Amino acid sequence: MNELDIYAKQGFGNSSGFGARPALLIVDFVIGFTDPEHFGGGNILSAVANTKTLLAAARAHSLPIAYTRIVYADHQADKGIFCLKAKGLEKFTEHAPLGQIVTELAPEPRELIVRKSQPSAFFGTSLAAWLISKAVDTVIVTGCTTSGCVRASVVDSMSHNFRTIVARDGVGDRALGPHQANLFDIEQKYADLWTCAEIATHLQALNQARES
Amino acid sequence: MNELDIYAKQGFGNSSGFGARPALLIVDFVIGFTDPEHFGGGNILSAVANTKTLLAAARAHSLPIAYTRIVYADHQADKGIFCLKAKGLEKFTEHAPLGQIVTELAPEPRELIVRKSQPSAFFGTSLAAWLISKAVDTVIVTGCTTSGCVRASVVDSMSHNFRTIVARDGVGDRALGPHQANLFDIEQKYADLWTCAEIATHLQALNQARES
Amino acid sequence: MNELDIYAKQGFGNSSGFGARPALLIVDFVIGFTDPEHFGGGNILSAVANTKTLLAAARAHSLPIAYTRIVYADHQADKGIFCLKAKGLEKFTEHAPLGQIVTELAPEPRELIVRKSQPSAFFGTSLAAWLISKAVDTVIVTGCTTSGCVRASVVDSMSHNFRTIVARDGVGDRALGPHQANLFDIEQKYADLWTCAEIATHLQALNQARES
Amino acid sequence: MNELDIYAKQGFGNSSGFGARPALLIVDFVIGFTDPEHFGGGNILSAVANTKTLLAAARAHSLPIAYTRIVYADHQADKGIFCLKAKGLEKFTEHAPLGQIVTELAPEPRELIVRKSQPSAFFGTSLAAWLISKAVDTVIVTGCTTSGCVRASVVDSMSHNFRTIVARDGVGDRALGPHQANLFDIEQKYADLWTCAEIATHLQALNQARES
Repeated sequence: MNELDIYAKQGFGNSSGFGARPALLIVDFVIGFTDPEHFGGGNILSAVANTKTLLAAARAHSLPIAYTRIVYADHQADKGIFCLKAKGLEKFTEHAPLGQIVTELAPEPRELIVRKSQPSAFFGTSLAAWLISKAVDTVIVTGCTTSGCVRASVVDSMSHNFRTIVARDGVGDRALGPHQANLFDIEQKYADLWTCAEIATHLQALNQARES
Repeated sequence: MNELDIYAKQGFGNSSGFGARPALLIVDFVIGFTDPEHFGGGNILSAVANTKTLLAAARAHSLPIAYTRIVYADHQADKGIFCLKAKGLEKFTEHAPLGQIVTELAPEPRELIVRKSQPSAFFGTSLAAWLISKAVDTVIVTGCTTSGCVRASVVDSMSHNFRTIVARDGVGDRALGPHQANLFDIEQKYADLWTCAEIATHLQALNQARES
Repeated sequence: MNELDIYAKQGFGNSSGFGARPALLIVDFVIGFTDPEHFGGGNILSAVANTKTLLAAARAHSLPIAYTRIVYADHQADKGIFCLKAKGLEKFTEHAPLGQIVTELAPEPRELIVRKSQPSAFFGTSLAAWLISKAVDTVIVTGCTTSGCVRASVVDSMSHNFRTIVARDGVGDRALGPHQANLFDIEQKYADLWTCAEIATHLQALNQARES
Repeated sequence: MNELDIYAKQGFGNSSGFGARPALLIVDFVIGFTDPEHFGGGNILSAVANTKTLLAAARAHSLPIAYTRIVYADHQADKGIFCLKAKGLEKFTEHAPLGQIVTELAPEPRELIVRKSQPSAFFGTSLAAWLISKAVDTVIVTGCTTSGCVRASVVDSMSHNFRTIVARDGVGDRALGPHQANLFDIEQKYADLWTCAEIATHLQALNQARES
């Protein structure tokens, strides 16, 4: 019995659905995570390009939009275990060029920037409270890396009981094996996978349903 | 360039080390997660057997010991998104036989049982506060599944800045592909991998250092 | 300048309002917190009586309803700092008569019981995630004590960005000075104060607005 | 029976003690919370002066030191319920003069600055994880206001199972009634009250014990 069969037999892999009040969460699309000389590479640049299209759709439909950045204190006051495992992470300080959101996805005023120092966008941040303030029931996730901060954010989004949609072509990773393996886990247990184009079409439909 | 090379080049895969005050966390070794007719299978039973030996060592050295169980309310008051993705999870109620810790690893009085309803042992629980009360600096993790509740618990343990040690032969999964893929991610980014025997030997050494 | 004037001059004491999707949270109305021989006394019994009426209204309008209990492990595995400050708290174990919800407010199936070991109903629990799953935007709080677990729960409810309504005659305390002092702080900074009767009338109005 | 008698009879008001590895937490001593034209007044300036002495002692003994600031996004992306209750809070943006830490207590490099948008220093921040990384077992709290962000931070510190010491002359409030009422609640249930001078003397003794 192959893996998909085992998961299907045990009851995994069902859809948790797309709710009525979505938000868009863009994880760690910063310069240092798109550049292969730092933590980037693989299919990350194409995930940025796909996210750019989705971001335009999200803005057109007035979705709440949040971006995460990894930000450590200038003098390493908050350097922790994560910086031991991944050397160089502590260089993502407030003003370091590496830590700035890529220009293709530059945030607009009133969009939220979440500073975080751990993999999950929810850990040690007020993201969950902000989503509550916007009455969000569904979190659409793009970003990088699939096997790192995206995966951790998706698990926490689901754990908070937000329906979670991962843009399968809007998330990327420096290496394709972990990218695929994590999409498998995510789809089986935590979130539904859609393409950016499918999500944009659905946002349009949601909007029309609301207006009629 | 293969995956290991990419990760090595970018600075991942370093050791975060083993601290001075470890605790043992045993994730979801309950009947329904060891039985292949429910959510078990794969190498889970051998992980239970290895954990049994490690548990004896942890008790011999008076480590704080915690076990997690998935527990949902009897009338599904708290059935959430996770139960949509994984059908049947809501059957793990307080008194359901499926949800009881396996007899090989029966908790003793004064060991902590953590009831949880999400993947991570830390989410919506007082595990972190309990570890603080015990002055723990290192969390040793065994349990199942590697690609699910173990992975989520390890990410949160590291995010809380506990040095985290995953017993590579004390964690198991229903399918080996996700098991291996998640051990890769864990070792590269979140925790160090040791065997149960290596951990037991190290506990002995820690104890001798303390006594001398 | 008296206290109210100082607070008014500095911009405190405004209303945060009553939203569209309320839930009812009943904090620690258990036998040991109503009995003056244990942790009860003062105006707690009258707060229970007023809550009973409000609970009937909440059920009539199908609000999500949650109750908290303080529950420590049978063998004190999780006895922490709170039990040092307040001796005897650790006696509130799962099956101790002291720790059972008072019969006047007996929960029905499908209503949520939240086990907690700290003052706030949100700390180390999945209450926030449950409220998200019910699309709640407003938390109505009754319970005891005003100066303890109610206050802590209200601060956390507001911090999660739930509009918070405290039933001023549905919360009680063993001593009236702290009760009044905490209602002052709550009204100035965290929540709006309504009577149980005003809340019940408003629920009726919300329901009619929804139906028409 | 007066209030103190009721609390004493029921088992409250015990000491939770001073541990071996303290940290200093300075809550919201920023310009806008010391100036009576904004949110300051009362005994806040004298609490700043006392904290200055304690801070010197904490630095002399190499304690981990953290400061909180309230920081909202520049374009009010994260304005929530708290800003409805307390008008003007949203003006505490990253670069607003109001939101800067007072010059008497200017942080040094390697001391932690915690940005928060809610009353508690722990809510939506990585303070707890940072304290874990420093192996802290005791949190010494100064700051303002006693009835607001200090109280909320103290409750959360205790809930995380940190022994908590409130510097009774290092915390201040715009009005003395709420200041006193909250010190009462804090001492009865959550933390021990010491003067700044008593704390400094104890730090000296801890240091000597460690050296001998």
